[in-house]
Amino acid sequence: MLVHGRETRSIRLADAGDAPPVPEVIDQTKLPHELRFVRLETLSDTERAIREMWVRGAPLIGVTAAFGLALGARTDPSGEALEEAARRLSATRPTAIDLPWALQNMVDALRPLPSEGRAAAAFAHAAELAEASVETCRSIGREGEAILTALASAGGGSRALQILTHCNAGWLATVDWGTALAPVYRAHRAGLPVHVWVSETRPRNQGSSITAWELASEGVPHTVVPDNASGHLLQTGRVDVVVVGTDRTTASGDVCNKIGTYLKAVSARDCGVPFYAAVPSSSIDWNLGEGEAAEIPIEERDASEVSEVRGLGPEGQITSVRITPAGSPVANFGFDVTPARLVTGLITERGVCTASRDGLAVLFPRELAGEEARE
Amino acid sequence: MLVHGRETRSIRLADAGDAPPVPEVIDQTKLPHELRFVRLETLSDTERAIREMWVRGAPLIGVTAAFGLALGARTDPSGEALEEAARRLSATRPTAIDLPWALQNMVDALRPLPSEGRAAAAFAHAAELAEASVETCRSIGREGEAILTALASAGGGSRALQILTHCNAGWLATVDWGTALAPVYRAHRAGLPVHVWVSETRPRNQGSSITAWELASEGVPHTVVPDNASGHLLQTGRVDVVVVGTDRTTASGDVCNKIGTYLKAVSARDCGVPFYAAVPSSSIDWNLGEGEAAEIPIEERDASEVSEVRGLGPEGQITSVRITPAGSPVANFGFDVTPARLVTGLITERGVCTASRDGLAVLFPRELAGEEARE
Repeated sequence: MLVHGRETRSIRLADAGDAPPVPEVIDQTKLPHELRFVRLETLSDTERAIREMWVRGAPLIGVTAAFGLALGARTDPSGEALEEAARRLSATRPTAIDLPWALQNMVDALRPLPSEGRAAAAFAHAAELAEASVETCRSIGREGEAILTALASAGGGSRALQILTHCNAGWLATVDWGTALAPVYRAHRAGLPVHVWVSETRPRNQGSSITAWELASEGVPHTVVPDNASGHLLQTGRVDVVVVGTDRTTASGDVCNKIGTYLKAVSARDCGVPFYAAVPSSSIDWNLGEGEAAEIPIEERDASEVSEVRGLGPEGQITSVRITPAGSPVANFGFDVTPARLVTGLITERGVCTASRDGLAVLFPRELAGEEARE
Repeated sequence: MLVHGRETRSIRLADAGDAPPVPEVIDQTKLPHELRFVRLETLSDTERAIREMWVRGAPLIGVTAAFGLALGARTDPSGEALEEAARRLSATRPTAIDLPWALQNMVDALRPLPSEGRAAAAFAHAAELAEASVETCRSIGREGEAILTALASAGGGSRALQILTHCNAGWLATVDWGTALAPVYRAHRAGLPVHVWVSETRPRNQGSSITAWELASEGVPHTVVPDNASGHLLQTGRVDVVVVGTDRTTASGDVCNKIGTYLKAVSARDCGVPFYAAVPSSSIDWNLGEGEAAEIPIEERDASEVSEVRGLGPEGQITSVRITPAGSPVANFGFDVTPARLVTGLITERGVCTASRDGLAVLFPRELAGEEARE
């Protein structure tokens, strides 16, 4: 999407003339204050980029890991090294299912090849995954745009359609377009008046730092609010629809996403406001059925993400301030699970369905039947 | 309650030898990093202390305003000046009902007196209101302690009782003891094992900065979490009871409190966890009945409270960092309303009742009948 008026992606190959190619990613921990691309030269660079959240967002983590595996293959293309690289990359973040999905997809594609061709093939395959992600997001955008347009019509168009989102499920969480934000971008480009309430998303503030920056760059009207405000916005008729992303959705439609998502879903239900999750099928864990959402590992991250807040200091430098008493313990759960019963619908690249096994079965019969683990 | 092992109150008369007396309050914007008492010498000092939130919390705002009126009376004890002082103090914060309640109470007490005696009488009356607030909180603590003890028994005592709270409704929101935290302090002092989940309470972080500091000072086990975590804690059985304070509760039991309270209530209901509000009767707006909660003015505060976070900088100084993009608009609603249907009970100084007109009628028949506006 647009950055200073130029189409930009969250991951790209640096310096087109490079041989061999070097992936580069935006260091998202510097946003919104600084836009900096960082080259990933090695497998270790990639691990660090994912673990330290220079890149984040389930789909982008998957694609970045795929390039990380390609970087590993450049050093050692043996089967054992590939497996070891996949294991290391898979251990960087536990919750998003796209990560093991992309790595398995890479390993499956590379293993049949002779070792000497694997590195080049790995880059080509990672690039294909990136393109496939863009296509998926574009399709989610199209499906979701129809929902937004219908809601705007139903509302009579007396004001901009009011959309509440959480965390960042925009192009910076994917390769381009985003998941939850793809419908917003499409609707905005098509001329539908929209306004996005951006929940800041403590503790890491991906809403106020990344989503707000994305929307501002694209020219989409928006307002940043503390996470605590979402209930009041919903209660007072200021929200027409909630749209969020997902890190892992079960085959029965339970949506695991950034911590705080469930609070939005349960209050949206209480207020009669529709709640949608934008779900690329790579984020669906077909192995988890009814009542098995509790098996999703919920990442617990460092206490310092809660006790210290990072931002732009008085002298224009990026710095941190401590907000908790030195002696107070802190807990930092990364995700929560929104039960399917609170989800109005799942917006997938193949269409919109109810958040249920039956709903998913219409769009993904083979995946659900387990006849084919992944397309 | 305890600070460095010494019993401390949030507001007191400075230097016992002083004649005339000078109230002093803790500048709570410096907590948890610095404990500093500030003298309030004039009516203007008091306005500033309330508006800039050196003091906050509905009951403490009321008591501080009462002392502010006394400071005003010291300069000009005329009836017009009293009215003007009450008007100015009342305009400092719009949502909490304790503020106009305390001011009206002061004006009613002073008006019958000859002007020359008003200043001294005003200080005496303000001090009485402070003592009455302490008594009220002590009673709320006793009533709430019974609930906590019963829940702990019901839980079998295999672990500490897990209490979730929001914002700060401790002794720093009152004069001593607190409202929501009074039961916790009493239970803890009585030897009941408790653990408090402290919701940080964006945007001003009164949870992580003030509640955590209070609990640490008193030695109560606690853990700070982002506001977003409360749903996950409730869903995963980590919370036995939610207890919050209130800035204004309607005569039919709708609870207006710090923004984000409703999200805790609606998720607690969804998870089957009891949700109590600790409500001194001075926080009840007897003029607002069924369906009239929307008439409570919801304060909107400065955008900088959301876009900038204040804390302890790398060199040990209190400073702010900016977390939003420079061009992104921000909204900052101070409060929300939890509908009575989501409230398990109101803990008042006269006992616990259902959050309803009928429940309040049992404990406060005269107030509700309007026979007597206030006791």
